[in-house]
Amino acid sequence: MYSSKIINDPVYGFLTIPSPLIHQLIQHPFFQRLRRIKQLGVTDFVYPGATHSRFHHALGALNLMVKAVETLRQKGVKISDAESDALFAGILLHDVGHGPYSHSLENSIVSKVPHESISYLLMKKLNDEMNGQLDLMLKIFSNQYKKPFLHQLISGQLDMDRLDYLSRDSFFTGVIEGQVGAERIIHMLNVREDELVVEEKGIYSIEKFIIARRLMYWQVYLHKTVVAADILLINIMKRARAICQIEDFSGISKSLKYFLTNEIEISQLRDDEMSIQHFINLDDADIICAIKDWQLSQDKVLSQLSKNFINRNLPKVELSPKPFTSDYILECQKAMKKKFKIESDDMSYFLNNGMLKNDAYLVDQINSIKILKKDNQVLDVAEASDNYNLKAFKTTVKKYYLCFYR
Amino acid sequence: MYSSKIINDPVYGFLTIPSPLIHQLIQHPFFQRLRRIKQLGVTDFVYPGATHSRFHHALGALNLMVKAVETLRQKGVKISDAESDALFAGILLHDVGHGPYSHSLENSIVSKVPHESISYLLMKKLNDEMNGQLDLMLKIFSNQYKKPFLHQLISGQLDMDRLDYLSRDSFFTGVIEGQVGAERIIHMLNVREDELVVEEKGIYSIEKFIIARRLMYWQVYLHKTVVAADILLINIMKRARAICQIEDFSGISKSLKYFLTNEIEISQLRDDEMSIQHFINLDDADIICAIKDWQLSQDKVLSQLSKNFINRNLPKVELSPKPFTSDYILECQKAMKKKFKIESDDMSYFLNNGMLKNDAYLVDQINSIKILKKDNQVLDVAEASDNYNLKAFKTTVKKYYLCFYR
Amino acid sequence: MYSSKIINDPVYGFLTIPSPLIHQLIQHPFFQRLRRIKQLGVTDFVYPGATHSRFHHALGALNLMVKAVETLRQKGVKISDAESDALFAGILLHDVGHGPYSHSLENSIVSKVPHESISYLLMKKLNDEMNGQLDLMLKIFSNQYKKPFLHQLISGQLDMDRLDYLSRDSFFTGVIEGQVGAERIIHMLNVREDELVVEEKGIYSIEKFIIARRLMYWQVYLHKTVVAADILLINIMKRARAICQIEDFSGISKSLKYFLTNEIEISQLRDDEMSIQHFINLDDADIICAIKDWQLSQDKVLSQLSKNFINRNLPKVELSPKPFTSDYILECQKAMKKKFKIESDDMSYFLNNGMLKNDAYLVDQINSIKILKKDNQVLDVAEASDNYNLKAFKTTVKKYYLCFYR
Amino acid sequence: MYSSKIINDPVYGFLTIPSPLIHQLIQHPFFQRLRRIKQLGVTDFVYPGATHSRFHHALGALNLMVKAVETLRQKGVKISDAESDALFAGILLHDVGHGPYSHSLENSIVSKVPHESISYLLMKKLNDEMNGQLDLMLKIFSNQYKKPFLHQLISGQLDMDRLDYLSRDSFFTGVIEGQVGAERIIHMLNVREDELVVEEKGIYSIEKFIIARRLMYWQVYLHKTVVAADILLINIMKRARAICQIEDFSGISKSLKYFLTNEIEISQLRDDEMSIQHFINLDDADIICAIKDWQLSQDKVLSQLSKNFINRNLPKVELSPKPFTSDYILECQKAMKKKFKIESDDMSYFLNNGMLKNDAYLVDQINSIKILKKDNQVLDVAEASDNYNLKAFKTTVKKYYLCFYR
Repeated sequence: MYSSKIINDPVYGFLTIPSPLIHQLIQHPFFQRLRRIKQLGVTDFVYPGATHSRFHHALGALNLMVKAVETLRQKGVKISDAESDALFAGILLHDVGHGPYSHSLENSIVSKVPHESISYLLMKKLNDEMNGQLDLMLKIFSNQYKKPFLHQLISGQLDMDRLDYLSRDSFFTGVIEGQVGAERIIHMLNVREDELVVEEKGIYSIEKFIIARRLMYWQVYLHKTVVAADILLINIMKRARAICQIEDFSGISKSLKYFLTNEIEISQLRDDEMSIQHFINLDDADIICAIKDWQLSQDKVLSQLSKNFINRNLPKVELSPKPFTSDYILECQKAMKKKFKIESDDMSYFLNNGMLKNDAYLVDQINSIKILKKDNQVLDVAEASDNYNLKAFKTTVKKYYLCFYR
Repeated sequence: MYSSKIINDPVYGFLTIPSPLIHQLIQHPFFQRLRRIKQLGVTDFVYPGATHSRFHHALGALNLMVKAVETLRQKGVKISDAESDALFAGILLHDVGHGPYSHSLENSIVSKVPHESISYLLMKKLNDEMNGQLDLMLKIFSNQYKKPFLHQLISGQLDMDRLDYLSRDSFFTGVIEGQVGAERIIHMLNVREDELVVEEKGIYSIEKFIIARRLMYWQVYLHKTVVAADILLINIMKRARAICQIEDFSGISKSLKYFLTNEIEISQLRDDEMSIQHFINLDDADIICAIKDWQLSQDKVLSQLSKNFINRNLPKVELSPKPFTSDYILECQKAMKKKFKIESDDMSYFLNNGMLKNDAYLVDQINSIKILKKDNQVLDVAEASDNYNLKAFKTTVKKYYLCFYR
Repeated sequence: MYSSKIINDPVYGFLTIPSPLIHQLIQHPFFQRLRRIKQLGVTDFVYPGATHSRFHHALGALNLMVKAVETLRQKGVKISDAESDALFAGILLHDVGHGPYSHSLENSIVSKVPHESISYLLMKKLNDEMNGQLDLMLKIFSNQYKKPFLHQLISGQLDMDRLDYLSRDSFFTGVIEGQVGAERIIHMLNVREDELVVEEKGIYSIEKFIIARRLMYWQVYLHKTVVAADILLINIMKRARAICQIEDFSGISKSLKYFLTNEIEISQLRDDEMSIQHFINLDDADIICAIKDWQLSQDKVLSQLSKNFINRNLPKVELSPKPFTSDYILECQKAMKKKFKIESDDMSYFLNNGMLKNDAYLVDQINSIKILKKDNQVLDVAEASDNYNLKAFKTTVKKYYLCFYR
Repeated sequence: MYSSKIINDPVYGFLTIPSPLIHQLIQHPFFQRLRRIKQLGVTDFVYPGATHSRFHHALGALNLMVKAVETLRQKGVKISDAESDALFAGILLHDVGHGPYSHSLENSIVSKVPHESISYLLMKKLNDEMNGQLDLMLKIFSNQYKKPFLHQLISGQLDMDRLDYLSRDSFFTGVIEGQVGAERIIHMLNVREDELVVEEKGIYSIEKFIIARRLMYWQVYLHKTVVAADILLINIMKRARAICQIEDFSGISKSLKYFLTNEIEISQLRDDEMSIQHFINLDDADIICAIKDWQLSQDKVLSQLSKNFINRNLPKVELSPKPFTSDYILECQKAMKKKFKIESDDMSYFLNNGMLKNDAYLVDQINSIKILKKDNQVLDVAEASDNYNLKAFKTTVKKYYLCFYR
């Protein structure tokens, strides 16, 4: 009998490693690499406690999955040991394809490949190494298994990923109002017709989850200074790539250089061992070292942006319910030209505008969380709730931003 | 009137920035650099939450100093605005001279210069830049000011540095038993004959502080796996330095290369602008990037150690109340030679032994915390306490370690 | 110099007693009596941790007031020592007129006198005893002092009472989502034209406060099982009063008997020393002892209701967005008559209906929290916020309830 | 399949009710009565948050038992459903025989019968009512079952009772250093030769448990002001009993009167239905109501003591490592006679001395916690630990107290 290992965790008290297979996966270099990638990218510029890693989040989500399996089994839902091991492996590896600075640089390093595709690629590589031990996990992960609720536990409206990242990000940022009561929600889960449902007594917890999630979006993930730092980081990479023919990249790591001087497609990552090896070598440290080096670049734009990042001299973000007018934008550009001597051609590295919204995350979600009533009826949460304001949360909130130096 | 800024902090709720001078210091590159240096070096190999930075700790200690000044003023202790600004600046900058991986590499990067000397050097540089605004702070910091209690608040048995790092390290590791009730202790502080004292009613809090501190030493700072990781990291740097004549250091940062290929003295840091600039450029990322690069080094020792670090393949540590016998050590070496094909000359990179003790930290301390009795008498805490076991903590605890691969 | 006393508090770490006057008030029997009155009446039937007392809440609110005064003074707001002592006394005593089971029995024991009037009466008595030391406090408390912000700190949209009770009730019930970040909000307070305002950077904290407050209403204060227990308790007192001519009240305390057999007006409490003395004698224990005794009453209704209370056999509450129809109510009554043999005349002790709403608490509040913009403009929070859903909270939420046995 | 109910709990997040049998027991009047008995008696005179009930503690201990059973089963320890239900019932009811003010009045109400005997009596009555459903529980509870580890989980050095009360009392008093990491310790439990053992990796948690426990004794359970309040309460009951022939007890509850005017033996509680019914009627409220009534007693001693209690006018406690001399005691008595006009005959109600010690709780305990080494050897914790100071805790600490008015 495997005696599960435990790891200290300030969020849940401790984390469990439920099986030898999972222990083996955690020790693999693909997974250890996540120690060196911060969960929230540049967010610690605003919330200095938010230095926690993707590694920690993955272990946290795993821990919740262990509890979810326990709960469901106690309620009579059949989950075999092979299935639970697949669930554990799936949630552990769900973010294994994230690159440096996670979401911030998702389109800047490997520009056309979402992290989910890289995760899936790495999972398959691991499966090959492990002689097919992850076959069932891959099936569940790609939602091709006969029990959809297993997939929903890994990736769905109330999956263990979300429950952990909201809890964990709330904890490390100190935005306590974002706490979601993950263990409480898990306790309310059940399964009907192979779909994940929440028992009726859990409806208030779900409402609080929705409110907390919204709050975390505006307070943390889309906080305007976080957005500003994201934009600055993206512009640095964009500039580096733009001048890669003339910039001497000798001061940066070979792996980062590889991605900045090439446009890598998913097929190349799949077929070219060197390509994926370069990806695996990358973490937040490559980015920091490169930006430190670029402070002395001959290229004035790259040099300026890099100094700004290292010394936390961030652009300002203005928010508005309406798009900013061209007139206003032109005015800002003029002022910047005068004050900072920015050439017109370089303006796109110093002034950016766009839209923030949280609807993609929220509107549909509210519809698709299923509540199991005491009479065994299954309803959408918005219907089942007697909180007549829950519907207010279904409105898409859009905010337009203008990011520039003043 | 300056409206103080506040920053979210999961430990105390929020952190305050009490004056424009302090705001200016925080924005300085010397201080921003601390964002990129973890407070606890390699400790996150054991406690994955312990990724908090020196930057965060310095702000935390500042926040406690703000509270200490408030409390003392309320009790009638005279502290002028100039003195309080000096206190705030002093505690903010007390660790500004820490290099990458803080204590772990303290003797590996700049081998002969303790971090306190570098902190003092950087403070003087800042003072020059700021036209002497930090004169009073420097006087207090070096304990040459007429009110010793101001120095004791920055550096003494109950200084704000210790109160913050115990609270913060306990929080982020999840070792909750290490909590010390920092705000409570601060509330008990007072001053008698210009020395810091603790009011009698605070004696239990002091006892708890001593117990918690001891616990943090053995559970965290001297945890045997942390010691193992420290030794591995130190050996990597030792090896890199040993082969610097033959190793091609093109893949590592110029600043790290500078320190690995030179033995830098304090005089050089003081007099040679380039030298201190290289120091300021360094942070944890240089170390990670170098070690990742060295995985492919021609030097087998450096390559092996580097892979071990990146993939968290740590040596084991055995502890014993007595020194390990030469026979036992020889036996271990033999086994390692056989199993890992290690040459005799390289053995010192793979097997190390030594002693851990916490007395330097604890024994004297217990004597020198002063308790103010209700009758205005001032006593040492060990005398004042009716906890007849407090004296037990005055015994030096020594543990011998042997660190090697098995 | 007064060395402030401190008391352990799980919510804020510790509580301070800032002056000898306050120390004296705390020791007075009027205030000590609040130890024996639970803050949340019957709520511990649902949340077993909610056994905290009015005494604890008053000390908590005092502690926040100490911090508010510190913050405002640091921002240059002039508050004299006499004024701060008045604030401390005022917040300490704001609830001193609460009777047993606080709000639950507010109209059942002294039916026509709100607790605020009794508080004011007791404050005046204390002032007489203390030779006018509370004169200024009484002026501020009744909003007749020249600086309205002092009154607002005791009783206003963001007063220390609310900030403490939300924090404390959230803590002891375990409904963590109700946490409001009291210290953070206090840090944002300021004064403009003698009115309390919140600095602009605090706007998100205010939004969270409003959301948390709403949540606490529906989750705790108006939780349907709490409502059911409240109704049961009120019905017991109503029945006891109805039969006071025939019931032998020898088993209950003299003071409770006094109030059940008399209709006491404010004038009597003011003018008749015995009357107020009886009030001061009352606390939760009188109610519990009476109900235990009434389990054996000859009166079947009183006996049944009392047994139900002691053994937590609570009625059920149904909620609906629309009033319940007379037909439905009649049907329920019929079923009850059959099942429980309840006489028609007694039905009003076993079935009750009515409406719950939280608007009185919320709608106006949102309008009257004032935000101080960076340009020194003062705006209502709803206008100042860019959270386009804040307005959703201004809608009155009404729920109709039907409370009966099934 | 039974869907377990959950209850909010600020300590663990929520509490579970694992089976219909347990649900039924919780609803029984014997158990509901524990809602009205504070876990820590008079401790809230010192720690105002410590108003939590025996009811809450019992549910907390139950919740830990549910987790312990889960953990052990996962490790392959066989526990049948009948056995786990017996464990749940046993821990739920372990304190059901506590009377008002728990330990404080244990020898004052039913002077010769320890609460454990009454608990056992009530369990047997419940078993009769429930037609033997608690047979197995009674066997385990009285350690007559073939698997001793089941008994140890209810009552042993690391039982769920202790783990909960230390966690819960630490939480509600705000003495955070008393936290013991209950869930962590549970995770380390295992069984060898039918005895409960702790896996080696849990040894530090056990050390922390021992340190925390000691701290709770001196900081809370034996806090000198708590001791003073206990003595005052005991003296009130002693006096009431002494004058029961002449005091008119018409103002106190019939059940309390019954116990004050009779010396009840266990046989009477067992055989006389009225006797046990009176016991079941008692809770903290009877004591408070009686003491309030006695403030107006003709007996000056009873009246004075009662006023002191209601208005928290507590005696002072002096502590000393040596017994107090008769001379010193005489001197104190003289001063009291003069100042408070106390008659010689009544002195024993106003001055008391004795000894406090915590050895009974600690010394043996350290010996009897068994550690399971990785090589399957089982050792005492003191032997297994490399914390060379753990032995210091085995010394009995004795403090002599003198409790009197000054």
